[in-house]
Formats: sequence, C-alpha cells, structure tokens
Amino acid sequence: MWAGVAPDASRRLLLAAVDSFAELGYHGTSTRHIAAGAGMSAGALYVHYRTKADLLFQIALTVHESVLAELEASVEGVDGPAARVRALMYAFARWHARHHRAARVIQNELGALDAAHARRIAAIRRRVRALVREEVRAGAAAGVFDVADIEGTARAMSSLAIDVCRWYRPEGPRSPEEIGALTAHLSLRMLGARP
Amino acid sequence: MWAGVAPDASRRLLLAAVDSFAELGYHGTSTRHIAAGAGMSAGALYVHYRTKADLLFQIALTVHESVLAELEASVEGVDGPAARVRALMYAFARWHARHHRAARVIQNELGALDAAHARRIAAIRRRVRALVREEVRAGAAAGVFDVADIEGTARAMSSLAIDVCRWYRPEGPRSPEEIGALTAHLSLRMLGARP
Repeated sequence: MWAGVAPDASRRLLLAAVDSFAELGYHGTSTRHIAAGAGMSAGALYVHYRTKADLLFQIALTVHESVLAELEASVEGVDGPAARVRALMYAFARWHARHHRAARVIQNELGALDAAHARRIAAIRRRVRALVREEVRAGAAAGVFDVADIEGTARAMSSLAIDVCRWYRPEGPRSPEEIGALTAHLSLRMLGARP
Repeated sequence: MWAGVAPDASRRLLLAAVDSFAELGYHGTSTRHIAAGAGMSAGALYVHYRTKADLLFQIALTVHESVLAELEASVEGVDGPAARVRALMYAFARWHARHHRAARVIQNELGALDAAHARRIAAIRRRVRALVREEVRAGAAAGVFDVADIEGTARAMSSLAIDVCRWYRPEGPRSPEEIGALTAHLSLRMLGARP
C-alpha cells in the first residue's frame, strides 16, 4: 500500500505517523515524535510535510485509494451477481485485515481531518459505498438476491468488512483470506442469495 | 446509562471526559480540560477521580456493564432460538446507536486502559461474546440455524452491532429501533434461520 509513496523519507514519515497515531492518537501526537520515530529531525520532517494535518491526510488518502482500487479490481471480469458480491466482499474484508493498523487509525481519526481534506476523503468513501450498493441493487434487480432494504443491507455489508480492522489480530486464529471468505459467505446470506 | 453514577459531580465529570476524549482522544486530553468541561477546577476533579486513567476506566466500565445488562435483559423469558437471537441483536445494535458517542470513545481507546483495568473490561467483553455465541450454538444444536462456523458467525453478528457506533448519526435517516430491527433480520439471515 505504501510502495507508491516516494521518496523513501516521505514513506518512512507516513509509517512513523501511523505508529504514533495508533499509540497516542492524532491529537496526542507531536510532529517531533513522528520525526523521531522515522529517525529524523523535526526540521527534516517539514521538508516533506508542512503540518501534522498533512500527514494525516496523506495516510487517509493512501488508505482510501488503496481500498477503492482493491474493490474495483476484485470484480473486474467477474460475471454474475453472486460471484461479484463474493469477490467484492472477500477483497473488502481481507484488505481490512491486512491493513488493520492503518485502517483503524484512519477510522478513529476521520474527525480530525480538516474540512477540505475531509471532503476529499468523503468523496472516496461515497464511491466505495456506491460500489457495494450497486452490486446489491443489480443482484436484486436480476432476481438473484432477495433484499427488502438495499441501502441498509449494503451498509451492513460494508460495516462488516470495515469493522474487521477493529478486532483483527495477526496472532489470532484466522488469516485475512479466511476472514474474507467468511465475510463473503455471510454477505451472500444477508442478501438471501439463491444457492 | 449514567443515571447510576453518583454524586452528580462525578457524573458530570464522566460526561465531560467522554466529550473531551471524543474530541481530542484520550492522550490528547488533559484533566484540566475535562474539569473545565464540567465547570469545575482541576482540584475539584481529583476529589472524584485520582487520574485520567480512572476516568477512562469508569467510562469503560459503565459502558460495558450497560451493554451486558441490556443483552441479558433482552432475552429474558424469550423462547425459541430465532426469537432469542432477534431480541438479542435488536437490543445489541439499538444500544450502540443510542450510546454511539460513549461507545465509540471506548472502542477507540480500549488500548489506553492500563493492564488491570483492561483485564476487568476484557472479562465483560468475553461475557458479551459468549452470550451471542451461546445463542448461535443453541440454535444450531436445535437444528433451527444452519451454521458451519459458529465462532466466526457469532463474531460477525457482534461486529455488525458494535460497528453501529462508528457510523450512526442521530441526524441520519434511521432510528436506533430501525437499525436494531435490520440488524436482527440480517443476523437471522447469516444464521440461515429457517423462516
């Protein structure tokens, strides 16, 4: 997820910021602490990011663009409403297990984004929600799903996948792939998909 | 939920702490800020709570004891696996909509509890999870639910209810009761409950 962040110092600072926000929260973190975590001086940090708010936004943007790309790729070339929902929800939950730490920081700190940043992130979140809702709607229209409340059921599916980042522990008994498969299965059940 | 906290000054301090933690996070909050939020001096705060950690623990304890009591009451005298799960999940999700603010603070800040406090809260959380899992297990044993993965499905049901506190907005289109009813319906679907 961070591979596209260049130069190397920028990436190290983002990762140090994720660590620091996870430990102390956004408001409890100083740029000095982040710089120290990346083995840099506070002055060197400002070459890459003007403010702590910029760091939070870059993390939020990286995280949200990564989710969206993963979801879009997951259904590419997949045919049939049930197969598409299965692929989508597998990818959605697996992503939140794999990237649970950064995802959790961002879920917790969305409220700390400043207004312009929050609008850009909200736009990506709307696209993610629309992607799930559109699959539910298409399957219901095709008579493959039996859904009375399309909006509410799509919300619940997203919620189930996103909340993985809250409870997932790498040392736990399930792999990200197993969590993805279970989430896909339970989503199809929620949709009343015909077996 | 806070009605049992006495005296009045203790309750006002807890509520001010919830506000402050929600706004600034646990690590970003000072006891001075909490006291000011309650219209008190920092000195007056220490009469009621020795440390900021004590405040966090009292909030966590109040929140978790409230959830557990609500869930236990929800199934009292209810017969039949499907009716019991419906009652349980309705109460579980509705509680997290009604108390979304305090619940969210606590979900975000569980990691900030000190070790002894964390153990007491973890014990209550285990009882909550066991309550859900036991209903799933009983229904599967009775042949009313069709569940291959009891532990994973029960976890998903809890996750769906808890995550309500992350996305619920009082100004949104759904009431806590509607969210409770939808969560109960979707839980029964996840369980493959016979109609």
